[in-house]
Amino acid sequence: MRHSGQLPTGTFGYDRSCGAMLMSGGADFRPVTSACWDVRARLDDLDRFGVHSQIISATPILFQWDRSREASLDVARHFNDAALEMCSASHGRLHALCQVPLNHVDDACLELERSMANGHVGVQIGNHVGARDLDDEGVVTFLQHAAALDAAVLVHPWDMDPLSGRLARHMMGWTVGMPMETHLSIVAMILGGAFDRLPESLRICFAHGGGAFPFLLGRLENAWYQRSIARGSSMHPPSHYLDRFSVDSAVFDERALRLLVETMGPHRVMLGSDYPFPLGEQDIGALVRGCGHLSDIERRMILGGNAASFFGVPLMQQHAAPRHQVVATPPPLRAQQSALAAPVSHAASRATAPSDYTP
Amino acid sequence: MRHSGQLPTGTFGYDRSCGAMLMSGGADFRPVTSACWDVRARLDDLDRFGVHSQIISATPILFQWDRSREASLDVARHFNDAALEMCSASHGRLHALCQVPLNHVDDACLELERSMANGHVGVQIGNHVGARDLDDEGVVTFLQHAAALDAAVLVHPWDMDPLSGRLARHMMGWTVGMPMETHLSIVAMILGGAFDRLPESLRICFAHGGGAFPFLLGRLENAWYQRSIARGSSMHPPSHYLDRFSVDSAVFDERALRLLVETMGPHRVMLGSDYPFPLGEQDIGALVRGCGHLSDIERRMILGGNAASFFGVPLMQQHAAPRHQVVATPPPLRAQQSALAAPVSHAASRATAPSDYTP
Repeated sequence: MRHSGQLPTGTFGYDRSCGAMLMSGGADFRPVTSACWDVRARLDDLDRFGVHSQIISATPILFQWDRSREASLDVARHFNDAALEMCSASHGRLHALCQVPLNHVDDACLELERSMANGHVGVQIGNHVGARDLDDEGVVTFLQHAAALDAAVLVHPWDMDPLSGRLARHMMGWTVGMPMETHLSIVAMILGGAFDRLPESLRICFAHGGGAFPFLLGRLENAWYQRSIARGSSMHPPSHYLDRFSVDSAVFDERALRLLVETMGPHRVMLGSDYPFPLGEQDIGALVRGCGHLSDIERRMILGGNAASFFGVPLMQQHAAPRHQVVATPPPLRAQQSALAAPVSHAASRATAPSDYTP
Repeated sequence: MRHSGQLPTGTFGYDRSCGAMLMSGGADFRPVTSACWDVRARLDDLDRFGVHSQIISATPILFQWDRSREASLDVARHFNDAALEMCSASHGRLHALCQVPLNHVDDACLELERSMANGHVGVQIGNHVGARDLDDEGVVTFLQHAAALDAAVLVHPWDMDPLSGRLARHMMGWTVGMPMETHLSIVAMILGGAFDRLPESLRICFAHGGGAFPFLLGRLENAWYQRSIARGSSMHPPSHYLDRFSVDSAVFDERALRLLVETMGPHRVMLGSDYPFPLGEQDIGALVRGCGHLSDIERRMILGGNAASFFGVPLMQQHAAPRHQVVATPPPLRAQQSALAAPVSHAASRATAPSDYTP
């Protein structure tokens, strides 16, 4: 991250000025705001949204899984320690997922163990390691280790295949590539028999509403029943595994959210924001709060209860109502909002580490 | 297609024996049944499903767009003439979409013109031509020509990028690759400004419920509003273009069908079966008939009215009820079924050409 010298000018969709540039391979990758490293700025935002707690994790390009064994581990340790420093300054409102060098499974297991001992609540991994998907033997070993350590796992899409350059335009890597990556990961885990080899105690969540998976489940299920070669080594049809994983709610559409909740069940959907990035939900929780298809209890589960249970963090009963709600909303709705938005808000919320620790 | 010598043994998910092997580049590609070339066998199936009419088209591997200019055109002419022979033996129940050598736009336009004059009702194209997507200048020129000729266009996913081999297992090319190809095509047409350059009179339909697009529209829309670089050259946000294309109903899941109909509107969804292949709907129309979220009039539109209007073919008012319904169903339901299932059944139903014309 470049935080001195030539800085980005403009808002780049953030609705505020950017104070640093996230870099990849020496090239500019994405302008970022101080919410990435400044705990106070982040908590101010959360107050504004009426959100008490947040699960934070590094943006995936910080994984550095294509670097040497030593470098990948070193980067993970640095960012993991930095994330805990942010948490310790947050008065219990931020909880962190560590990152691990999954390019070397043994190192990944050890770094997960160290991080959990230090206070992380789980781990975020990319949805594939080069050409290896999540049913890969090494990845399954790591996930078994996560289950044994009682570490929650968040899977985030990354390293999107460019489809011979066809995804290189118009951010289609984000709007086409990412949801395809996540869908592929869930399908690979199912058909590759990963869920059959993993303990049911594993808590694993896929970002962005499970990518395209919820809408494509029917197609997958039909193929499974019709062609034996579409079954891989799975012991059961795909729908059998729906109670083995969770998803976040970041689908940006009420109809999609309804399908998501109906398919996964309301206990397996957690508020996701992609905060503090422009492609995230800008008014965190607005989609879930406004979704007419949800009951009050379902809303409460999705806005906090599910995440508190999934990540094993305290469920806060009340928090200050969003600032604009305090001003603009009549008491009954405000009270409801503050109650709903109280607890842990976000499975997929990401934070880059403090600038002190970045190259 | 190999229809003599060593033939496939077994049913391969077809629920009947296979009489020939579809080949690609000299290698076995997919076992097929006589329904691919035998009009009587096909009509018997349609009778069984209570379906009067069907739109047929070649399976995309027959396009041969990677061959020489002469070969691509020659193949298209052969299959197009053969498809019309099937139609002429069908007593008005089969209607054909032609194929065109889209690797050479001028030839494609001329072959479309010839085919429409000969009796085709439209054209089926693959969702991309190598690295060129549907907003490519040449493809847009072809689509403008289709609009001028009043030819309906069906877009079918094909030539799925293998993602460095990650889609090579468990038919994931079909369950992950195909829906992402279709999603990418719709996104590319929107963000690449293709719809802005095409006349509103163009009738274009995407197979398999538009791939992953309906579920991912919210993510795409949010990105469009938040980042200028996610807009491409589109003049409007993605949702603005929903009334510019249709989709078929082949999503194999009632929740997905509901999202599809709510997103696209009931007038833009047409019964799709992928008949006669194993990954298609085995009891054609069952999903739509059984979908509790649809009104009777919506069911009728999706089962026939929309397709009749889209492809410009007669809407049959009545047809024999499905055989098993005649036996098993009490009169009121049977009457409803036969009325609903009367007209053109299928936008995406595919037929390989008669074996006479295959290599």
